[in-house]
Amino acid sequence: MTNKMYFEDFNEGYVFEFSVPGLSAKEIVSFASQYDPQRFHLNEDEAAKTHFGGLVASGFQTQLLCFRPFCDQVLLNAAAVGAPGIDSLKWLRPWYPGENLSGSVKLMNKRPSSKKADRGYLTFKLEASMDGLPTLSMDWTVIMLRRA
Amino acid sequence: MTNKMYFEDFNEGYVFEFSVPGLSAKEIVSFASQYDPQRFHLNEDEAAKTHFGGLVASGFQTQLLCFRPFCDQVLLNAAAVGAPGIDSLKWLRPWYPGENLSGSVKLMNKRPSSKKADRGYLTFKLEASMDGLPTLSMDWTVIMLRRA
Repeated sequence: MTNKMYFEDFNEGYVFEFSVPGLSAKEIVSFASQYDPQRFHLNEDEAAKTHFGGLVASGFQTQLLCFRPFCDQVLLNAAAVGAPGIDSLKWLRPWYPGENLSGSVKLMNKRPSSKKADRGYLTFKLEASMDGLPTLSMDWTVIMLRRA
Repeated sequence: MTNKMYFEDFNEGYVFEFSVPGLSAKEIVSFASQYDPQRFHLNEDEAAKTHFGGLVASGFQTQLLCFRPFCDQVLLNAAAVGAPGIDSLKWLRPWYPGENLSGSVKLMNKRPSSKKADRGYLTFKLEASMDGLPTLSMDWTVIMLRRA
């Protein structure tokens, strides 16, 4: 873990790029049945009758799958100790089956904790798009330890 | 569907109350392994070494499970056609195994769409707590059709 990242290692200009392979209809329905069973996420026939014209992923599924690459490749190798919340999340277009997404996570702001000297707050902006069409945007904050 | 709810049916003072049964450690680990494999969500032994002192649910799992009752009991019986985003989400305390949550969803704001006469925007505040201790807060907006 010699390359573990701390608060000091995230600085202006930090960018992480990622991609998310398109979902199958089955994966969209499976998630919806567990977490968000609205008809345009759950059933292809019902979805075809809505303004979406077909099945679309739950926005929560989009949120989770766009977060996962950053989690795996950055947070799991960093001294992250939690997150106070999401400042803003925008679902900019529906995510249809088979559409690949790509995007980036940029550091927008960093500040030391005023209460605990061993940590600081990092605010990131995640943006994902499909063929250049903005699909998801999420601004959120991570608590990261400083080097001892 | 004679009692289906439309934009006109959500008005000042609207409150929906819900509860969420506590999760098992296995349910927390299962979600984490799919969506948020940080060590304090994924592994009891590793979690015990962190400042949480034990396994805690992914904040995304808390978000999803607190949303589900409102989805099932309100949105599935309403003319909801999507959501533009989340205005704010706060993780106010960690959610440990076996802790039951209870909470409410309150209507904070409603406004007709300026572009489409058949719909409007409803902004809700979801608040969940454990034995009176605030655990999650989420402000988000739903697009709801008006009565034809």
